Amino acid sequence: MPGDDRTGRDGTGRDGTGQGGTGHLSPEEFRRQGHAAIDWIADYWASLDDLPVRSRVAPGDVRRALPPSAPEEGEPFDALLADLDEVVVPGLTHWQHPRYFAYFPANSSPAAILGDLLSSGIGAQGMIWATSPAVTEVEQVVLDWFAEALGLPADFRSDGPGGGVIQDTASTATFTALLAALHRASDGGVRRTGLGQERWTVYASTQAHSSLVKAAMMAGLGEDAVRSVPVDPATQAMDVEALRDAVAADVRDGCRPVMVQAASGSTSTGAMDDVAAIVEVARDLAIWVHVDAAWAGVAAVCPELRDHLRGVESADSFVTNPHKWLLTTFDCSTFWVRDRAALTGALSILPEYLRNAATESGEVVDYRDWHPQLGRRFRALKLWSVLRTYGLEGVRAHVRSGVELASYAADLVRADERFELVTEPALSLVVFRLKAGDQPTLETMERVNASGEAYLSHTTVNGKAAIRLAVGSWRTRRTDVERTWRALQEAVG
Amino acid sequence: MPGDDRTGRDGTGRDGTGQGGTGHLSPEEFRRQGHAAIDWIADYWASLDDLPVRSRVAPGDVRRALPPSAPEEGEPFDALLADLDEVVVPGLTHWQHPRYFAYFPANSSPAAILGDLLSSGIGAQGMIWATSPAVTEVEQVVLDWFAEALGLPADFRSDGPGGGVIQDTASTATFTALLAALHRASDGGVRRTGLGQERWTVYASTQAHSSLVKAAMMAGLGEDAVRSVPVDPATQAMDVEALRDAVAADVRDGCRPVMVQAASGSTSTGAMDDVAAIVEVARDLAIWVHVDAAWAGVAAVCPELRDHLRGVESADSFVTNPHKWLLTTFDCSTFWVRDRAALTGALSILPEYLRNAATESGEVVDYRDWHPQLGRRFRALKLWSVLRTYGLEGVRAHVRSGVELASYAADLVRADERFELVTEPALSLVVFRLKAGDQPTLETMERVNASGEAYLSHTTVNGKAAIRLAVGSWRTRRTDVERTWRALQEAVG
Repeated sequence: MPGDDRTGRDGTGRDGTGQGGTGHLSPEEFRRQGHAAIDWIADYWASLDDLPVRSRVAPGDVRRALPPSAPEEGEPFDALLADLDEVVVPGLTHWQHPRYFAYFPANSSPAAILGDLLSSGIGAQGMIWATSPAVTEVEQVVLDWFAEALGLPADFRSDGPGGGVIQDTASTATFTALLAALHRASDGGVRRTGLGQERWTVYASTQAHSSLVKAAMMAGLGEDAVRSVPVDPATQAMDVEALRDAVAADVRDGCRPVMVQAASGSTSTGAMDDVAAIVEVARDLAIWVHVDAAWAGVAAVCPELRDHLRGVESADSFVTNPHKWLLTTFDCSTFWVRDRAALTGALSILPEYLRNAATESGEVVDYRDWHPQLGRRFRALKLWSVLRTYGLEGVRAHVRSGVELASYAADLVRADERFELVTEPALSLVVFRLKAGDQPTLETMERVNASGEAYLSHTTVNGKAAIRLAVGSWRTRRTDVERTWRALQEAVG
Repeated sequence: MPGDDRTGRDGTGRDGTGQGGTGHLSPEEFRRQGHAAIDWIADYWASLDDLPVRSRVAPGDVRRALPPSAPEEGEPFDALLADLDEVVVPGLTHWQHPRYFAYFPANSSPAAILGDLLSSGIGAQGMIWATSPAVTEVEQVVLDWFAEALGLPADFRSDGPGGGVIQDTASTATFTALLAALHRASDGGVRRTGLGQERWTVYASTQAHSSLVKAAMMAGLGEDAVRSVPVDPATQAMDVEALRDAVAADVRDGCRPVMVQAASGSTSTGAMDDVAAIVEVARDLAIWVHVDAAWAGVAAVCPELRDHLRGVESADSFVTNPHKWLLTTFDCSTFWVRDRAALTGALSILPEYLRNAATESGEVVDYRDWHPQLGRRFRALKLWSVLRTYGLEGVRAHVRSGVELASYAADLVRADERFELVTEPALSLVVFRLKAGDQPTLETMERVNASGEAYLSHTTVNGKAAIRLAVGSWRTRRTDVERTWRALQEAVG
């Protein structure tokens, strides 16, 4: 008879061993293997200091080490852990390594990991309020907490006209901001009949994140619709007068400017656009202003590190990623809008099978209408866990530590006459180069990366190659910066 | 001095207690709290049978139970666990409950939870191959394994012209399929200069998932671009002759048909469109055919449950969600294309800071160009863990059990003359109603849902209300179906 060969009620396996056969772990096996997985993580972290930061595998090495087909019979979970050690770890570049300084950090902290683990165990879908109310309400509360901690204006709170939501990435946040902007500018026309004959244009500095171009491609505007506004060569911040000119020229040509993206902490150098000045330019034409503070925004938990967000109170949307610098396991990109009606207007759908009294009452928020996806997991748990376990004091201390370590790294650069800072340090990011030129700069970085001692990434600033050192891991200490600097000095040809 | 007040190397806290202060858990604390989180999950599962499936909270109840601001000082992790029990659990509708039969299942199995936990601990970013090679290569291997297990054609494998990728949701897969279709149909024009003057049209049955309309809205086509093709009233499958007529009429009117979506297992009744026949209609105009088998596709791990995918070998893209019925914690939506060039052509970006030798060699895949997001976590670990821990035998046994339990539920419906099946059972989904009409049908379902004994959802078929009973949890046994049926019988007015 169907189903009745399963033993027990609460997650038990057919054979009780949890090995082979059906693969359903018994509660005892789940506890045992779960504890083993936790211990594997603790051991992995403890091993990081001795591992090369950047993986040394060649293309195909990992694939060739794995069998060509899935096993017919279940294997013990321990076999997976063994393959992690033997096959996977050598193929990893270790983002949680204390001397990982490339790109931006992607923190994974104990508090966040356990919060996300609990979310997996609960396994609830929060696509609408009615499908599991706590998923939505905890997210609203945590986003309100976090908005307050960042000093965001009251309009962005869920008890005002706006509200916050956790997106997977800032790329998605930027894309949804563009959709909301198009909805508002077209008075709903885009959603119904498409982009039509309008020649929509969007604006950002030459230093803006590539996700804006991708958003324009995905929304049907095309990459040519993105105007790259020049920057001040010294600060790499948008030349706001050039923005004004670009908008005016487009309007004269019959284009419809729909969104400006302000970079508050660019990927290349951490450049901070003047949000307040951009808002001034955008106001007359009611152009949507989206503030992309994916990396730098979380620094605003420290009142003294908020200057770069001046003007955000008049912006239409804002994104920052706790999954970068703020200890929250990917994915957790916190996104706020000042008027949620434009966002939900652009994205709402209501199939019959999701109709319910709570939605129709208007008393609840249905996050399905705040992003491209329908299904959504209980992501707020991990941010809730971080904010509670660290407290605001703890997250501020973490941010300040990163800024101090970057400042220390900048001092080291200044003290060696072969090197020079390319820009002044931005929060926890230092950008520097060898005075000898592009090739020595890139070769020196590559020697360090190849050694495995540390991992850094490169960029181009004003046409010249530069090295980026982005602090952010909670494992990084002063000695890690010193070891990395010594490696760079020794790698100079 | 910055950073040097941290003690130890491998994840240690400043105060060594892991409580309060900085919030960084020591390795010992992480192990202790991690084991506690695992045990919380095991206890939560064990408690489910005694909890009402559907939450009984009213809008705002959860919010009001939480403080208005984040704490200044860190709290013990145990405080979070206590609030889970006291505030969160009562606010949950329990998707992992053995008598959860609403919507479609969203399985969270031990194997997947532990795989995902390990991904959180590793905390690597797989946006491109070079940022952590194993993240990409394990995903390629696992998607090839799974393609083979489902009987998908060789073209979809990563060693052919196509390949698979894990998307967050089928909504995103459908959206990216549309972008790829537009790219191919416009020969790259859409990406560069936007949708332009063409009047693009897309097609799906009246029973297609709402995500297609959302995709058309997001891509800039607008909801009016979606043609709803009628279905056969008996099977609810697309009337393919009507599709042929709709395409021909649009072409006469100067529209450009760009994509047809075939539903292989509709949300409402599990209806299966004839993929092979749809491909025939699409071929002459080179219209992209996307097969949405979000729920039903995973059944193809059983050779005898593959008929509904006949024709997929000639489709352009295919999606199915292991995070629904196949034991893999959300999010894990497996998506394949027959020609990856159209997909990456539509979505590729290459900012300076991500330039690297491996990408330029063409030897590797950069998954950043396969979806809207840039950042991506190591999602393949959880599917790898499921396929290995269960083995193909185990996942087949799981699917067969769901089909058998649904068949048993259908027998119960047939045996009570007050009820009638609305359609024949589709795999693990049973759709039925009270002969007495819409209001008694919906009231009966609501009484059962309100009782907490079981949770079902409703739909409308041929204009009449119906109840959906979707089996899928690995916790559901024959007695759960029997209890649910008894509750429905007792709830009839």
